[in-house]
Amino acid sequence: MPNQNAVRAVLAKAREAGRAALTADEAKAVCDAYGIATPAEGVAESADLAGDIADDLGYPVVMKIVSPDILHKTDAGGVITNIADRQAAIAAYDAITAAAKNYNANATITGVQVQQQLDAAQEVIIGAATDTSFGKLVAFGLGGVLVEVLRDVTFRLAPTTAQHAEAMLNEIAGAEILDGVRGQEGVNRQALAELIVNVSALVDDFPEIAELDLNPVFATAAGATAVDVRVLLDFDAKEARYRPSHEDILAAMTRIMQPDAVAVIGASAGEGKIGNSVMKNLIDGGYQGAIYPIHPKADEILGHECYASVRDVPGNIDIAIFCIPAALVAGALAECGAKNIPGAVLIPSGFAEIGEHELQAEIVKVARENSVRLMGPNIYGFYYTHKNLCATFCTPYTERGQVALSSQSGGVGMAIVGFSRSAKMGVSAIVGLGNKADIDEDDLLTFFEQDPNTGVIAMHVEDLKDGRAFAEVASRVSKKKPVVVLKAGRTSMGARAANSHTGALAGDDRVYDAVLRQSGVIRARSLNDMLEFARGLQALPTPQGENVLILTGAGGSGVLLSDACADNDLTLMPMPDDLDAAFREYIPPFGAAGNPVDITGGEPPTTYRATIDLALREDRIHALVIGYWHTIITPPMVFAELLGEAVAAARSAGNDKPVVASLVGDVEIEDACDYLMDRNILAYPYTAEKPVAVLGAKYRWARAAGLI
Amino acid sequence: MPNQNAVRAVLAKAREAGRAALTADEAKAVCDAYGIATPAEGVAESADLAGDIADDLGYPVVMKIVSPDILHKTDAGGVITNIADRQAAIAAYDAITAAAKNYNANATITGVQVQQQLDAAQEVIIGAATDTSFGKLVAFGLGGVLVEVLRDVTFRLAPTTAQHAEAMLNEIAGAEILDGVRGQEGVNRQALAELIVNVSALVDDFPEIAELDLNPVFATAAGATAVDVRVLLDFDAKEARYRPSHEDILAAMTRIMQPDAVAVIGASAGEGKIGNSVMKNLIDGGYQGAIYPIHPKADEILGHECYASVRDVPGNIDIAIFCIPAALVAGALAECGAKNIPGAVLIPSGFAEIGEHELQAEIVKVARENSVRLMGPNIYGFYYTHKNLCATFCTPYTERGQVALSSQSGGVGMAIVGFSRSAKMGVSAIVGLGNKADIDEDDLLTFFEQDPNTGVIAMHVEDLKDGRAFAEVASRVSKKKPVVVLKAGRTSMGARAANSHTGALAGDDRVYDAVLRQSGVIRARSLNDMLEFARGLQALPTPQGENVLILTGAGGSGVLLSDACADNDLTLMPMPDDLDAAFREYIPPFGAAGNPVDITGGEPPTTYRATIDLALREDRIHALVIGYWHTIITPPMVFAELLGEAVAAARSAGNDKPVVASLVGDVEIEDACDYLMDRNILAYPYTAEKPVAVLGAKYRWARAAGLI
Repeated sequence: MPNQNAVRAVLAKAREAGRAALTADEAKAVCDAYGIATPAEGVAESADLAGDIADDLGYPVVMKIVSPDILHKTDAGGVITNIADRQAAIAAYDAITAAAKNYNANATITGVQVQQQLDAAQEVIIGAATDTSFGKLVAFGLGGVLVEVLRDVTFRLAPTTAQHAEAMLNEIAGAEILDGVRGQEGVNRQALAELIVNVSALVDDFPEIAELDLNPVFATAAGATAVDVRVLLDFDAKEARYRPSHEDILAAMTRIMQPDAVAVIGASAGEGKIGNSVMKNLIDGGYQGAIYPIHPKADEILGHECYASVRDVPGNIDIAIFCIPAALVAGALAECGAKNIPGAVLIPSGFAEIGEHELQAEIVKVARENSVRLMGPNIYGFYYTHKNLCATFCTPYTERGQVALSSQSGGVGMAIVGFSRSAKMGVSAIVGLGNKADIDEDDLLTFFEQDPNTGVIAMHVEDLKDGRAFAEVASRVSKKKPVVVLKAGRTSMGARAANSHTGALAGDDRVYDAVLRQSGVIRARSLNDMLEFARGLQALPTPQGENVLILTGAGGSGVLLSDACADNDLTLMPMPDDLDAAFREYIPPFGAAGNPVDITGGEPPTTYRATIDLALREDRIHALVIGYWHTIITPPMVFAELLGEAVAAARSAGNDKPVVASLVGDVEIEDACDYLMDRNILAYPYTAEKPVAVLGAKYRWARAAGLI
Repeated sequence: MPNQNAVRAVLAKAREAGRAALTADEAKAVCDAYGIATPAEGVAESADLAGDIADDLGYPVVMKIVSPDILHKTDAGGVITNIADRQAAIAAYDAITAAAKNYNANATITGVQVQQQLDAAQEVIIGAATDTSFGKLVAFGLGGVLVEVLRDVTFRLAPTTAQHAEAMLNEIAGAEILDGVRGQEGVNRQALAELIVNVSALVDDFPEIAELDLNPVFATAAGATAVDVRVLLDFDAKEARYRPSHEDILAAMTRIMQPDAVAVIGASAGEGKIGNSVMKNLIDGGYQGAIYPIHPKADEILGHECYASVRDVPGNIDIAIFCIPAALVAGALAECGAKNIPGAVLIPSGFAEIGEHELQAEIVKVARENSVRLMGPNIYGFYYTHKNLCATFCTPYTERGQVALSSQSGGVGMAIVGFSRSAKMGVSAIVGLGNKADIDEDDLLTFFEQDPNTGVIAMHVEDLKDGRAFAEVASRVSKKKPVVVLKAGRTSMGARAANSHTGALAGDDRVYDAVLRQSGVIRARSLNDMLEFARGLQALPTPQGENVLILTGAGGSGVLLSDACADNDLTLMPMPDDLDAAFREYIPPFGAAGNPVDITGGEPPTTYRATIDLALREDRIHALVIGYWHTIITPPMVFAELLGEAVAAARSAGNDKPVVASLVGDVEIEDACDYLMDRNILAYPYTAEKPVAVLGAKYRWARAAGLI
């Protein structure tokens, strides 16, 4: 059990003294309180005392300057190692204090720390930092140049668990080193994991610990000892983010996303006006709920009775879609509040995105006071197909499906609509989040989690206003439904000012990467991947195990598909002898069984069908990757039809496993791919990599959700 | 100047003794002869002598067992370090010899090496290995776990130059470490580069040196010293590969690729026969040369007079296309020889690909004897559009352009035809290489190098029969024309048996990566990338410098495009103040100049046109990446037309710079992309990454060719 009182006392003293860092002995006390092992040591205030302490500890010892004013001890000549006897200890005391005065004449010198010198060991670094979006993070990496130059480090949200801490040990590129290389013994992994957990608990319990470095930690087969500890403090309390309760979020979001009555504030009969486009899209999209145009003077617009204010509308209203200039938004929001409308869809721009932060703060304030949730501002609106709702000024989109998508940018939103239409991808919702003044990704996830019309969620994210809340919700939701995230801006995060190694490493896309992985989120590396993953995750059933089989008519495709499987962490099933023999029944003697199964290029449709049937009904095969080669004897549409029939038959027989296909050949293969796509068999022309990447995304999700 | 005689003497002795490795003193002699610094040392044959040598060298010293039978000295207890005085040296001698006898009672013990112990330094590894395809390679990496666990190592063909050696120092992930980290001094880069060059010269001069490790090399500010040297020998001479002279290759390949007369051996009137498909494709493709069907009995086939043998044909023949069973090939080849036909296109399968290696060896032998070059066997044939030649049983393809493609697999070849047709990509040639019994990629490169109809070369490669010849030709050709390679099978190379670190590291895709880069080749990571790069490299003019500008109507696209630029090593031009002001003339006050230039989403065509014109005429901007966002005010085709006009106008004015575009929006953007593609402006829908990746490929080529 950690001794919180001991830490509290240390921090209180530092706060009182106005210090932003702990001294070495304070840091040691904090470590002691949280079960973080440090070397035996004492602080000497004279050379003789240094000799006495060293005698007590036994040689060799290390000696280090203790000064609140000297953070970088080595730079100040404040560290001497390998001190072998009393005489050397006394000399070292004098040398260190002289060097420190030389480095900073005004430094207060508390004394010199005399520390037991540990045997050589594997050096690692464990630390903690505070991220503006994610809050407290704990970090682990290998010590020395590995972390400093190669930045081989991984992160978790703090606090973390022993299970996550052990996963961190395996995540770094140099993980193998921990098992012992060059004749070294492996380290005690449990001790390291415990240290990570303890550090994460410490910074979680004490938010004022802004950054913490244990660098190096000496890891041996016996245990893990933090040889040097640096603790940086920040007593300025952060403003807690406004978060309604889960029930309140869900209640509001459900009415907003599935409204029975919609008001259009700023509805217009004028062609080309946003208020006109929104009205048309609502009507043309086939929305069956009530539509109330709001206009100060008009009697009716596009056949719907007009009202001067939402307050004049007779029935309940679920959402108000704003099509009015930015300056008028606050006033209209107050009216929405008076009418008890739970959600406002703020299409107008003219807020934070052009530097009008105050105007945005004002509408947020009005919205909070009136219990109105805000979507936007600066958005295209949103679609919810299962209500035939196109609450947007863009083109209507009504193809129903299970994929919910959101985007922070309007351009990406339009790409989502265009891609969906082009790929005939059914969606449940497409949502613009824009400036995210209020509603953000975790609100949407909370709704989509329980929305029976949504099976896959894909989000384009530029920044997470509250990364921690997102991670919490995403961790829960991703257990049930795949969550895909395209994090834009990943290469432009720039440097951060930080006083610790961990702090410096935290200002980095690596944090997003680690937290998204921790949350079970599938990260897309490109817009096209996000869109293809969304489509594919919807289409593919969940695999029941790791065994992937490649079946190909082209040896060359088999090689490319194998490469792609390796790139996507997919496991080619080692072929059991009996199954190998079963495939060989159908393929020419010079064909290759094993995996890939190469049926060779000259084979008729019956060979494709027989081998595909065998693969589909065989329980040991969990996913099938097919490489088709266009030949005269098995033309593209013949192949497509036989594959479609084979999969349909297998599905009827209860054998629903993921099937993806790469088709190579002349342009006729494009029609064959379309035919297969229409039957939820992912088929792509002129590429071996895309079908496998999508299958890989499904596997990443299934593993993270604990399904395989 | 290296002392080759000294090395020759050492190697002769080892050969005579039947040894596969050099002893430490022999290895040192070899190093001395090639200017590879090693620590001062001597070999003692008694404990007293060890003390004498150590006294001479000065302390501390390291002592190591010298035995031809003990390769792994540390494992045998044969290394003791930090020996501080004479007494310790004497004790160490006894300890080492006892341990060696204990390790291997039958080991011949030559003595104990006593070596000057160097000060701590940055450890690096420099080595050489022999690759079955590439021959001698030199390797460089950081020592210790960095190379052993993280495999942070790079390669060059040996011999290499000082310039390449210096580039190697920068290629490893931990390159920064060489500049000095954690307060260390940087190393002497020139000394390291010289060491690499010397090692590469040594293994080039002496092919019998199969593997060599300098591990570790101690690198300091002063110099570089090889502390431990291991040299492994292989005296079995490798069979030299058959290579005609450059002139002979070119003469034969020119007639083969641009034939004036073609014989079809096994021509047939029977529907569905390969010999019928080939005849039809020749005729339907519009080939204007002579076509001679060869058939034992027929008088004419498809309107062309038949002959029983090529020997009966009255005129010259440039190529014979084989459409007969494998067993008949050798006989027909001899007839081709008698007729002085320079090339045979071997469509038949049934050779090495199904294990019939002897049959393949036989046809190669017959071909050599008859001076006939072989394309294939086991191929679809080839296309050369500028002769309207479709010498293949696949569908005809006649769209002329500058891209020449080859594939080792038929499936990939068909994907090339299909993609080309679908993308309206003009090609000069598409060539199937199949089993590569004779003609391979370097023969094709030699032809394409001087073919005025070819501007870009793209190759799908599974293995290079002679990687060194390929690298030599590719290095030369890539200076003139971009060469793209998709290396399939990159993740399945498996482990190799090797007795040195360098040898173990060499059995790896890293070798292909390093050699292709060294050769100026653009490596594609996927089939689709290879095809898109081929199209894009043809379409894009060469940039005149590194300054890339992003100009976008959607802020969200700007972020994704910036990410993609960073991923593809493209440099976003820092925006000069005057240019910033010039752009601001056209864009709304809340738009962002800088780079990306964000003109914002609500702008009319005139804003796009004005800013694009500015970017095109501005000499400081070398390439333009445009992010278009579909809006009502600037619809997709309006944008496409204005961009097309702007680029055409700039080209007329002599401002031809690469322009790529990402279009986001509804499906109408697909037509806009087609419109732009037809005008050599690379435009892609629903993706920010692809246009930038293609621009990145153009930049990689331009840099490697020394054009920027």
